[in-house]
Amino acid sequence: MTLKETQTEILKAIKQHQTVIIHRHQRPDPDAIGSQMGLAGILKASFPDKKIYAVGKQYPGFDWLGKTDTIEDDVYKDALVLVLDTANQPRIDDDRYSKGDQLIKIDHHPNDDQFGDPMWVSPEASSTSELVFDFYTAMQPELTCTAEAARVLYAGIVGDTGRFMYPSTSTHTMKVAGELMQFDFSASDVNQKEDEISIPLARLSAYVYENLTILPSGAAYIKLSDEVLEPFKLGDESTSSVVPLPGRLKEVSAWAIFVESKDHTYRIRLRSKGPAINELAKRHGGGGHALASGAVAHDDDEIKQVVKELDALLSKQGE
Amino acid sequence: MTLKETQTEILKAIKQHQTVIIHRHQRPDPDAIGSQMGLAGILKASFPDKKIYAVGKQYPGFDWLGKTDTIEDDVYKDALVLVLDTANQPRIDDDRYSKGDQLIKIDHHPNDDQFGDPMWVSPEASSTSELVFDFYTAMQPELTCTAEAARVLYAGIVGDTGRFMYPSTSTHTMKVAGELMQFDFSASDVNQKEDEISIPLARLSAYVYENLTILPSGAAYIKLSDEVLEPFKLGDESTSSVVPLPGRLKEVSAWAIFVESKDHTYRIRLRSKGPAINELAKRHGGGGHALASGAVAHDDDEIKQVVKELDALLSKQGE
Repeated sequence: MTLKETQTEILKAIKQHQTVIIHRHQRPDPDAIGSQMGLAGILKASFPDKKIYAVGKQYPGFDWLGKTDTIEDDVYKDALVLVLDTANQPRIDDDRYSKGDQLIKIDHHPNDDQFGDPMWVSPEASSTSELVFDFYTAMQPELTCTAEAARVLYAGIVGDTGRFMYPSTSTHTMKVAGELMQFDFSASDVNQKEDEISIPLARLSAYVYENLTILPSGAAYIKLSDEVLEPFKLGDESTSSVVPLPGRLKEVSAWAIFVESKDHTYRIRLRSKGPAINELAKRHGGGGHALASGAVAHDDDEIKQVVKELDALLSKQGE
Repeated sequence: MTLKETQTEILKAIKQHQTVIIHRHQRPDPDAIGSQMGLAGILKASFPDKKIYAVGKQYPGFDWLGKTDTIEDDVYKDALVLVLDTANQPRIDDDRYSKGDQLIKIDHHPNDDQFGDPMWVSPEASSTSELVFDFYTAMQPELTCTAEAARVLYAGIVGDTGRFMYPSTSTHTMKVAGELMQFDFSASDVNQKEDEISIPLARLSAYVYENLTILPSGAAYIKLSDEVLEPFKLGDESTSSVVPLPGRLKEVSAWAIFVESKDHTYRIRLRSKGPAINELAKRHGGGGHALASGAVAHDDDEIKQVVKELDALLSKQGE
């Protein structure tokens, strides 16, 4: 199927169903929520008689991108389920995704876990939010976009591109973002919001810069244990905004941030400026993009092992 | 004169002169250098028989955006002088700018000091680099742009928009940036470069977050005296990359960073998320944009006075 055929197929499925339920991944980021809420907004505006729901856990830090709906199991009966921005089924937030009449995947991650019919997977896209706007554009004049939908889609693109910084940002991404900016919302407010950090997070940033270990290979790492994090009183906030920080140092080529979880294992966030780190992530129960992956370390020994592998990967690179 | 007439007039002046000398402002930023080097690159590619020079002090931190030319005084005889990105004549780097046959100003700052004939001043543009690309586009097919010119123009736009963050970023800015990205250079490398900080600067960032004073009005300030800065061993590096940091805190609405100069006065960098701070800057020997200005404090008393005025400005705002 060509892209246009897939998009047409998706619109056809939407038209055929009275109820559409949109899922996204667990531990959402602005693209997961932006693409979900953006598509929900477009569908609500385009098909005011249909019931359109966006489901998944609501995080207060993301209230500014909209609120999810709480729905009963029987809503899934005869419903179309769209899963956005989620590569693997175990990561889908709300496991009722399989209970609908039809399942469709729309995503920009590598298509490792193939589910949904049709599937629209474009790994070259910057973000799923970009794909949602492409869908809106391709299906003109049948779809309507609101300023609010444009705002959250813009937020999704900004989130997944590190505000137009990462290599996934294409000429097309810039065009889409520019077109979104023509809707009536403040892009500047969105950017400020996504760039915002709390005072505790600012202090944690300071801690990261003061305590990051940088190896001669260009590998860098920092361990954020409960003991380290406790004095910062981050509350419900995530440590995700400190993840890009080591990358701003010229001396750092790839880095790992180990954050202690409730069960005392460590969530690993791996980032790279060039050498692919997703194979390393896969060896430690994770995966992701070539330059941005996640994994898990069960104890200090596995942390040491991950650092060793990252160092070896970069040392090899430099040869 | 319409915009198109002004642009045509500028191209005519370029064609009429065998020598073109391009100036920009002192203490340059990526837009000053990007617009200067970008225009120089476009003119060199378009008119290989002309002598095109870019002048002004060379800063090692900006070597990646190109090198300025050292020229004798007599080169100015019969030359066309283009002054880019510089609002006021005293700020022009290399005061021989008036020694040419004709003087033209191309700028996006408020046109407070009117000089040059013609003048092309578009304060609504994100950057002078954006204007240079507009000039290239408007004068098709007479002008040629190289990948290197596109790279430095892109760098200029990224610099002056805080990477597409500030309100000056328009749909047109995104379109221009997207078109520039179609040339053969790595936008991602440019972004990484502009986002890069050295380890000493990272530690200074940490210091700023740990020592920033935040007033209840939303005014914030920090004084970076020689004594404070000395241990960071910044060398020739500028403190400019810490300037945006306070703005990332929700609690901060406008802020002042006081950096001690060699003569022990303080260079003030004023930034705001909303309330205009350029009138305040003008009262202290400076000026600039509504949300980004510079000024000078001669001593601690003037620092206190500036903080007081900033606090009053924001307290008034909140009423």
